[in-house]
Amino acid sequence: MKSLKVGIIGFGTVGTGVYKLLQSFPQIEIKKIAVKNINKKREIENFNTELLTDNPYEIVNNPEIDIVIEVAGGVNPTFDILMTAVKNKKHIVTANKELLAKKGSELFQCAKENKVIILYEAAVAGGIPIIMPVKTILCANKINKIAAILNGTTNYILTKMAEKELSYETALSQAQELGYAETDPTGDVEGYDAAYKIAILSTISFGKKIDINKIYREGITKIKAQDIKSAKELGYTIKLIAMGQVLDDGKIDVRVHPMLVAKKHLLAKVKNATNSIMLSGYPVGDLVFTGAGAGAEPTSSSVVGDLLVLASDLEVSNSPMPLTVCRHEEYAEQIDIGDTYNEYYIAITATNNPGAIGLIGTICGKHNINISTIMQKGINEDNTAEIVVITEKSKESDVQNALKEILESDRIKCIDNLLRVMN
Amino acid sequence: MKSLKVGIIGFGTVGTGVYKLLQSFPQIEIKKIAVKNINKKREIENFNTELLTDNPYEIVNNPEIDIVIEVAGGVNPTFDILMTAVKNKKHIVTANKELLAKKGSELFQCAKENKVIILYEAAVAGGIPIIMPVKTILCANKINKIAAILNGTTNYILTKMAEKELSYETALSQAQELGYAETDPTGDVEGYDAAYKIAILSTISFGKKIDINKIYREGITKIKAQDIKSAKELGYTIKLIAMGQVLDDGKIDVRVHPMLVAKKHLLAKVKNATNSIMLSGYPVGDLVFTGAGAGAEPTSSSVVGDLLVLASDLEVSNSPMPLTVCRHEEYAEQIDIGDTYNEYYIAITATNNPGAIGLIGTICGKHNINISTIMQKGINEDNTAEIVVITEKSKESDVQNALKEILESDRIKCIDNLLRVMN
Repeated sequence: MKSLKVGIIGFGTVGTGVYKLLQSFPQIEIKKIAVKNINKKREIENFNTELLTDNPYEIVNNPEIDIVIEVAGGVNPTFDILMTAVKNKKHIVTANKELLAKKGSELFQCAKENKVIILYEAAVAGGIPIIMPVKTILCANKINKIAAILNGTTNYILTKMAEKELSYETALSQAQELGYAETDPTGDVEGYDAAYKIAILSTISFGKKIDINKIYREGITKIKAQDIKSAKELGYTIKLIAMGQVLDDGKIDVRVHPMLVAKKHLLAKVKNATNSIMLSGYPVGDLVFTGAGAGAEPTSSSVVGDLLVLASDLEVSNSPMPLTVCRHEEYAEQIDIGDTYNEYYIAITATNNPGAIGLIGTICGKHNINISTIMQKGINEDNTAEIVVITEKSKESDVQNALKEILESDRIKCIDNLLRVMN
Repeated sequence: MKSLKVGIIGFGTVGTGVYKLLQSFPQIEIKKIAVKNINKKREIENFNTELLTDNPYEIVNNPEIDIVIEVAGGVNPTFDILMTAVKNKKHIVTANKELLAKKGSELFQCAKENKVIILYEAAVAGGIPIIMPVKTILCANKINKIAAILNGTTNYILTKMAEKELSYETALSQAQELGYAETDPTGDVEGYDAAYKIAILSTISFGKKIDINKIYREGITKIKAQDIKSAKELGYTIKLIAMGQVLDDGKIDVRVHPMLVAKKHLLAKVKNATNSIMLSGYPVGDLVFTGAGAGAEPTSSSVVGDLLVLASDLEVSNSPMPLTVCRHEEYAEQIDIGDTYNEYYIAITATNNPGAIGLIGTICGKHNINISTIMQKGINEDNTAEIVVITEKSKESDVQNALKEILESDRIKCIDNLLRVMN
């Protein structure tokens, strides 16, 4: 295989994993590594510190470098750095989901003009091969649905909440202690990370650009121990689901929110920090891909995999294989959450009043919402009652309107939660 | 995309599926289709019968044809036909697992000499993307273990035996009525089909040629309703597992046999005709790929996927991407089943004799076999007793010797079954 010269931008956990894995591939020569702090002590055997620079432009402007590996993350200043790399005709391998979701359109346009290729298997679901398979071996399919667990941190927290009956706060702090969650967990627990990933995956699966700002997003911070308990009693488990689907009218529905997932569903069985992607298409049917969605080692498998694919491509031609090029021109018409149809789980606290169930039933009926299950379990000490409702498929805006009306009644103390259901 | 001319050999379920799917890809022109019976009525809209020939050599010798799609199956006469195609510099896309497992070595050697490429995603696990991902995006990994359900027919039969408590014979005949099993089911139920597939998958995963004749193979015909019942009571389900692993000494263990799979294992949850492949490697960790392993539509996804990858490759270069080329030179050193270590399920019928359990325990101990579970459930009407033993990890030859010795005792009526266990 032809020797290729690469520069690595970012040398944290993933960057170090990539560096270590590349030691087994002598055809890839690491010319430079851009770091934040050049003097930081690195726990790597026989490491040549002369490789380090604190100026990433020494990589992207270096005429000797063929490929830039970007594992620094973030949009600023990474976007400008990568745009410079592309303008300097360097191919890119990146794990940066945020940058691709927010600025991918500009970056890919620039890559097209400069005839370079950008690969990003590691940006979605860590070590699970999904981007490359969708672009290559599955390309004869019309993919119309994705439902996935794309964030390991939240799946870990939800798993522990269910297994050990912990509150969200306790499960989060345990996840932080074990390194599964960051000190500021916002990006994970509020669903931003999953939203970036489903935006990228929906774009390549459906062939249209997805506007990250139009993705409906709810995190897991509002999930209570009581919700998990009620879900369990009804035969469900709660997961943060990233989904994308092409509707009959061609509009595209992309969103991230917690869902009650039926216990028999394959995604219900995905535990701890594992990721899993269910993809449906014609003619292939349903496929499920499961594996480690994060961590230095799984992520380095995808980064170096992309690099070796690129090296193999470049060995036979200066132009990369057309299938691996992203060339989506058109934006998807994304549907508003209010216009989607879902089954719902509604948890309500009523004052202890004989009319509460009747009231809920009447208002739901008025708003075209059929109730499939209703469960009230005795009366609390403070004389309130917890009521759980599961609905048949209903329009989100109808459900929101019904809840507003239900809440107006003095028989109802509060709406504890509204979650969507996947059977 | 550059226009490519293809010929299709075989026009049964899969061939027809491929033909139909190709109608959406005008860049691929079908020049000829070789069939057994040219006069058979075909249920295809606007079908041009002039495409048909009953002589496949009209395809492989046709200078206009760039790529041969082979979905006829079998080794004779298909091998000679494909060798002719390769010598005539035609690329091949095939779904023929038997041919690849038995004669792949010769075919790939000839392809190398003639600088053509052979792709075969559809040969293993139908629509599930596994061959291409292992060859490309996962190529930075050292894969050391595969455990898979690769035969839909047997998984369907075992699922029905478990769910409806059917005998093997009844479940088989129901599967035959529904078209899940063939009139002569030997290829599926005796594990030949799974053995071909694990041979192919092990070759590309471990990078060494596998001798199909050295693969230990047991089918499912000996599985009794009682085994499934006992397995269930012990927390297991029975699956036909195709496995391959690289041992610490570099030897390779490839085999196909039924196993008791712990209920919590992801492969235990794979039902009916679905296939699933668990693959472990470094640095990626454990990956699981699940989907439809057979059928016209899923299989056509893989055949046309290969074709479009090939078309994309050929668009930029006359040489295919090096990564997609099979170039394993060395044969694996395959381990004998007697030298493998496994946990075992042993079902024994004893005469109603107080010494039977003691005898089994003593003989197992003598042969270095630790028993982890032993279960006897009362006495049968004929005064015999069924005893089930689960062992800790033991050497297969020790277990076989122990069973011989156990069987010699007049306290033992028979050994009902010996199965391996996956936790």
